[in-house]
Amino acid sequence: MAQKPTLPQGTRDFSPAQVQRRKFILNTIESVFKKYGFMPLETPAMENLSTLTGKYGDEGDQLLFKILNSGDYFKKLIEYNNKALAHEELDKTYLPSLDGKVNNLNAKIALPFLCEKGLRYDLTVPFARYVVMNRNDIAFPFKRYQMQPVWRADRPQNGRYREFWQCDADVIGSESLISEAELIKIYDEVFTYLNIPVLIRINNRKILSALADLIGASAHFNTITVAIDKLDKIGESGVSTELQNNGLDENQTRQILTFLALAKSDQALIELEQLFVDSKEGLQGCDELKKVFEYLGILHLNNPVKLDVTLARGLSYYTGAIVEVQAYEGEFKSSIGGGGRYDNLTGIFGLPNVSGVGISFGLDRIYLVMEGLKLFPDNIKASDTKILFCYFDEPSQVYALNAVALLRKAGIPAEIYPEITKKIGKQLDYANKLSIPFACIIGSNEMQTGKLVVKNLTKGTQDEMSLETLISFLNEK
Amino acid sequence: MAQKPTLPQGTRDFSPAQVQRRKFILNTIESVFKKYGFMPLETPAMENLSTLTGKYGDEGDQLLFKILNSGDYFKKLIEYNNKALAHEELDKTYLPSLDGKVNNLNAKIALPFLCEKGLRYDLTVPFARYVVMNRNDIAFPFKRYQMQPVWRADRPQNGRYREFWQCDADVIGSESLISEAELIKIYDEVFTYLNIPVLIRINNRKILSALADLIGASAHFNTITVAIDKLDKIGESGVSTELQNNGLDENQTRQILTFLALAKSDQALIELEQLFVDSKEGLQGCDELKKVFEYLGILHLNNPVKLDVTLARGLSYYTGAIVEVQAYEGEFKSSIGGGGRYDNLTGIFGLPNVSGVGISFGLDRIYLVMEGLKLFPDNIKASDTKILFCYFDEPSQVYALNAVALLRKAGIPAEIYPEITKKIGKQLDYANKLSIPFACIIGSNEMQTGKLVVKNLTKGTQDEMSLETLISFLNEK
Repeated sequence: MAQKPTLPQGTRDFSPAQVQRRKFILNTIESVFKKYGFMPLETPAMENLSTLTGKYGDEGDQLLFKILNSGDYFKKLIEYNNKALAHEELDKTYLPSLDGKVNNLNAKIALPFLCEKGLRYDLTVPFARYVVMNRNDIAFPFKRYQMQPVWRADRPQNGRYREFWQCDADVIGSESLISEAELIKIYDEVFTYLNIPVLIRINNRKILSALADLIGASAHFNTITVAIDKLDKIGESGVSTELQNNGLDENQTRQILTFLALAKSDQALIELEQLFVDSKEGLQGCDELKKVFEYLGILHLNNPVKLDVTLARGLSYYTGAIVEVQAYEGEFKSSIGGGGRYDNLTGIFGLPNVSGVGISFGLDRIYLVMEGLKLFPDNIKASDTKILFCYFDEPSQVYALNAVALLRKAGIPAEIYPEITKKIGKQLDYANKLSIPFACIIGSNEMQTGKLVVKNLTKGTQDEMSLETLISFLNEK
Repeated sequence: MAQKPTLPQGTRDFSPAQVQRRKFILNTIESVFKKYGFMPLETPAMENLSTLTGKYGDEGDQLLFKILNSGDYFKKLIEYNNKALAHEELDKTYLPSLDGKVNNLNAKIALPFLCEKGLRYDLTVPFARYVVMNRNDIAFPFKRYQMQPVWRADRPQNGRYREFWQCDADVIGSESLISEAELIKIYDEVFTYLNIPVLIRINNRKILSALADLIGASAHFNTITVAIDKLDKIGESGVSTELQNNGLDENQTRQILTFLALAKSDQALIELEQLFVDSKEGLQGCDELKKVFEYLGILHLNNPVKLDVTLARGLSYYTGAIVEVQAYEGEFKSSIGGGGRYDNLTGIFGLPNVSGVGISFGLDRIYLVMEGLKLFPDNIKASDTKILFCYFDEPSQVYALNAVALLRKAGIPAEIYPEITKKIGKQLDYANKLSIPFACIIGSNEMQTGKLVVKNLTKGTQDEMSLETLISFLNEK
């Protein structure tokens, strides 16, 4: 009995036309990365769970896709299960071998026997792992790009998938703010090529940290950034509630809301410098922002870059500049890119005090924006084939196979209809469905004279020419 | 406490230099696929287990990487576990909801609650699933290529990894033997571009099936193909033992060994036709082989294609032509590509009688061959950067940033050293480590005159030129 196949929730197939459009975006991003001196890196889809867990917060840990151990996990589980059925007290005998890493509930169901690997959740943590493992072979500052899928067991919705692609560029091993500026220029250049008008927002975590310090709430820094990060979604009153629910008093909350109002000011930077006149960290944040804007002035951007003190970024590892990109037009308003500077990402793997800064492009969201704004060029098609050869019988098939071989030898993507059939309509149908622009029907006349009738399937016209002329004709298309 | 990071067994990182070399292979294969009219398809890494299981034989099922259900699997497992501890007889109450798909052992450990998804094991089964799910939108014959990683929980060894890439091209919805010929020509063309001399071996499963019929062992067809497939590894005596251990008698075994000796004959096809004079299927296999060779004559191959009756291919879904490619030179003798015709692959998903034929390139093994034979072109480097700008202080940094921006605007990959440092040696070191061919040091002299001193780091020479001249100079490199 045949089964009706389906796809796992939140995953997608990409048809030929979709792959070509995705490649158009990927190639654009990649060519800009290369122009700025970034080198490609690829890491495996599977990482050890010990590499992944504890890096993305509690919520992130829950969204990891875990992989069952191969080999004898089955046998071990059965063995464990049987013993568990016999002795409820067995946990203790297993715990020592589990290295104390599991709590009682885990031990009870023997999860550590079950899985030690998970799917990549982002590209930053595997990059940090790579840098630490290969620190002696890498020339620092190390500029790498990485374009690969990541997996998150999140609830799927528009623009959120369980398998999606990130395109990251990071500079690690340098504190220079030139990197910040160049990465922002990369955003500007990629979205200019893709014809997406964007707003690039920038902030600095040192400013948020100084604010927390200023209002005597340093201990609640994480609460503050997480709350501010939600401003777009929950509004000022929502942020206010969340802050007070998490330990800040009314006065502190009011000061944060006053600070957030700076976002509307044209003089935000000047006002920040006044606010942080006694805060070394706050002033350093302002200086870094000014320096980045100075470099950006030299690099000439096409899209606006705006200081936005309400930009916070959820991830806890950012310590300096943070940046986020949204499309200016169209329905899709979520972020299509973001990044920032982290001062100690490799520290978790044993290599402390290596500063880095990186940005990420969300391929799938950029695709949604471009689809919504109809920005994909018309010449991106499912098939690259320039011409289809049709025929009626065995001798004309041999002639057509010869002709198509010569075209391909000249580098022209060409096809021969594979089946012998008198139905030329069916053969031309195939060409039309794939938007193949030209067709050539081989009959006895063509075989005798060597003059080929070449149909232009777009215009409905036709021309007679030799195979030699056809080759130079199609080479120019 | 920092953990020392590691990679899961059988998986690998790819450094920038390795990625560039892998891309050289991938781009070569892709450009040939496109020239022959194949269109790109991509499917998700995760498939439902119901899509994957039962398609690759018992051994294949065991090598699937299974993914733990996300969300409440944990809660369900605990619930199940607690109930199991309370009532050993509980299985029965769970079995109905499990659709009878699990045996008692499975039910006992509640595996179905644990996982419903697995990682892609090859590209053929996902392709068949895609075709069935999108049959109404596809223009047949459908020629697709797919280049993606696959995962197998196999024991890692040289040339065998747990995550590796396949590059497949398939034609589905046509019985024409032109497809077989074109796919073999694709092998020939790709390996010609890559400079790998190969031997392409071809056979037809109809011939093996006719043989089984002829010796009265049709019921053991699978045993026969699996045993023949091992001839290289276990020799004639090994095949003989395996056949007799699996139900064939001495006479049948002797006949099979006589048949295998045909591989050494120059007249194999003629001898096969004599052997199968009374077998419709056997003669059809011979006719198909002759036709494919006839088409190959028209397509002009650079590498030898040899009929080899000992070629069997392990996979059970092949029904017609089968093909396998080995490197002629070098240490690595395992197959670097293979494929064949299957008459009913989509039948398992509810779309019967759709014939297809496909080939696969093993990227990782091709890489090993090329590395072993030193076939990678010298100009494949980790970094594409053409020139590095060095400087001493803030004013020269600004000048350099301006210059590098103009080079990039002209499409030239260029870098500016990110840090201000008096140590020019350190900056040039960076260029040398990345094999960046040129460097330009900006000092007060350069800033005053506009004449840049450009160092050729390969030759150790240097030239003075304006930025404008530098741009046209590097554009020609």
